[in-house]
Amino acid sequence: MMSSTMANTSTASLRTAARSTPQPDAYAAYQTPLAVRLACRSGALTGPTAGMAPGYVQGNLAILPKDLAEEFLRFCHFNPRPCPVIGMSEPGSFKVPTLGEDLDIRTDFPGYRVWQDGEVIADTADVTDYWRDDLVAFVIGCSLSFEEALMAEAIPLRHVERNVRVPMFRTNVQCVPAGRFSGRMVMSMRPLVPAHAIRAIQITTRFPAVHGAPVHVGLPELIGIKDLMQPDYGDAVEVLDNELPVFWACGVTPQSVIAEARPSFAITHAPGCMLVTDRRNTEFAIL
Amino acid sequence: MMSSTMANTSTASLRTAARSTPQPDAYAAYQTPLAVRLACRSGALTGPTAGMAPGYVQGNLAILPKDLAEEFLRFCHFNPRPCPVIGMSEPGSFKVPTLGEDLDIRTDFPGYRVWQDGEVIADTADVTDYWRDDLVAFVIGCSLSFEEALMAEAIPLRHVERNVRVPMFRTNVQCVPAGRFSGRMVMSMRPLVPAHAIRAIQITTRFPAVHGAPVHVGLPELIGIKDLMQPDYGDAVEVLDNELPVFWACGVTPQSVIAEARPSFAITHAPGCMLVTDRRNTEFAIL
Repeated sequence: MMSSTMANTSTASLRTAARSTPQPDAYAAYQTPLAVRLACRSGALTGPTAGMAPGYVQGNLAILPKDLAEEFLRFCHFNPRPCPVIGMSEPGSFKVPTLGEDLDIRTDFPGYRVWQDGEVIADTADVTDYWRDDLVAFVIGCSLSFEEALMAEAIPLRHVERNVRVPMFRTNVQCVPAGRFSGRMVMSMRPLVPAHAIRAIQITTRFPAVHGAPVHVGLPELIGIKDLMQPDYGDAVEVLDNELPVFWACGVTPQSVIAEARPSFAITHAPGCMLVTDRRNTEFAIL
Repeated sequence: MMSSTMANTSTASLRTAARSTPQPDAYAAYQTPLAVRLACRSGALTGPTAGMAPGYVQGNLAILPKDLAEEFLRFCHFNPRPCPVIGMSEPGSFKVPTLGEDLDIRTDFPGYRVWQDGEVIADTADVTDYWRDDLVAFVIGCSLSFEEALMAEAIPLRHVERNVRVPMFRTNVQCVPAGRFSGRMVMSMRPLVPAHAIRAIQITTRFPAVHGAPVHVGLPELIGIKDLMQPDYGDAVEVLDNELPVFWACGVTPQSVIAEARPSFAITHAPGCMLVTDRRNTEFAIL
């Protein structure tokens, strides 16, 4: 079973967190989205979901009270690259049937983080006890979907080969603000040789619902990154002399923005502990 | 009327050849492909065609004897990025009706270059006297089409702003050889800020028949380019600190490969003096 150390997101702990990345052979039992969700629901699975139920969309989580949810949806709407909303509950409902008929947003993630006034008050595998009638759940697309498409075309991803988390950077690119939500865009970085960078731009362009095309390539200093070996989240991976750093908008952005807004109440997923949905990655390709 | 100095392709002469680039306001009379072709046919137009008949595909020319033509078609087939064949005549025919019903390949370019045993034996505005029953004409897509698509999205192109020719480099990337044809790929370079580079990759991907997506970005030393300010053809334009050099396969490649093959006989277009066809650029978009 997975450790729950992923609940700790400090950069230092994540940088050494090869242990937090799943070993594919550990997941023979989790080949279908339903199997993963049932394991979460029963408490049998409390760790990262990368590599589980190959071919199916995984999603990040943001749960907010209704008044904040309206502003947050506006924020997502105007920042679709870092915040692609792939599912959303009715206020008070913990169901998102478009992503899975049986799905219960309170139990079907392996782990949650509960926030009060901007502080984490609980790391837990079940938020049923925290549920309120005014809560709205957002499920946000994640890069696992487009990484699958890249790997299907034999484009090597160093963090996957190294079995570490993708390096992520808080850039100087400002999101479009909406209500109480504003902040800088977090981007994930993958080093690629130029031909693969071009092909990766083409492939990920097909998937706007899971971050889409890169937002930057090649000149990290232009987006406020001084040292590629010092990511703000995730693990460092080196960029070789024959490679370009390629940057995609990252789903950590909404989490970072929510943390900065210090909402009275919020729930997010524990890092790496995603919802596995019944939607196939290929359904999200626009061509 | 245009000067005919474009017939001289030495790098030194081209590097100072702002004079060889057309001024858009000089072409009020050449708004339609037919008008351009008729002006060529009558001898009234003997200079570059850039900027004429906006929206319509322009093409490069290669004419070879039938036995070489078969090998050349094979070469183009296996090197579609630098050598996208958009039209081809039947052996002995000087018609390519798919590109224009009235089109006469012997007269409808503003200028031609006639080659014998690898040497230029004539620069002329009409090759009727050189025509032979065994000749096959190839019309090859050119970058003017995708540049129009880039400019339509307000992506600035420095060589256009400067009114000079795009810089082109003979890279160390080998084309796939076919028969007597082989050689290195020539690429055109356009400096773009990263966001424009990403968008330009998306836009030009839609146009595989006119060179398509870039083949390289960002690291010119990897493709054998030592100094971006010393192009092998065209004019130098600087790459600013906030820009990446973006490289597309170039239609000068087939000309360079034909010159190296030293065929017994060949005809090409004079530099910059393209065929203006009845096909719209947008017809060549695959999506």
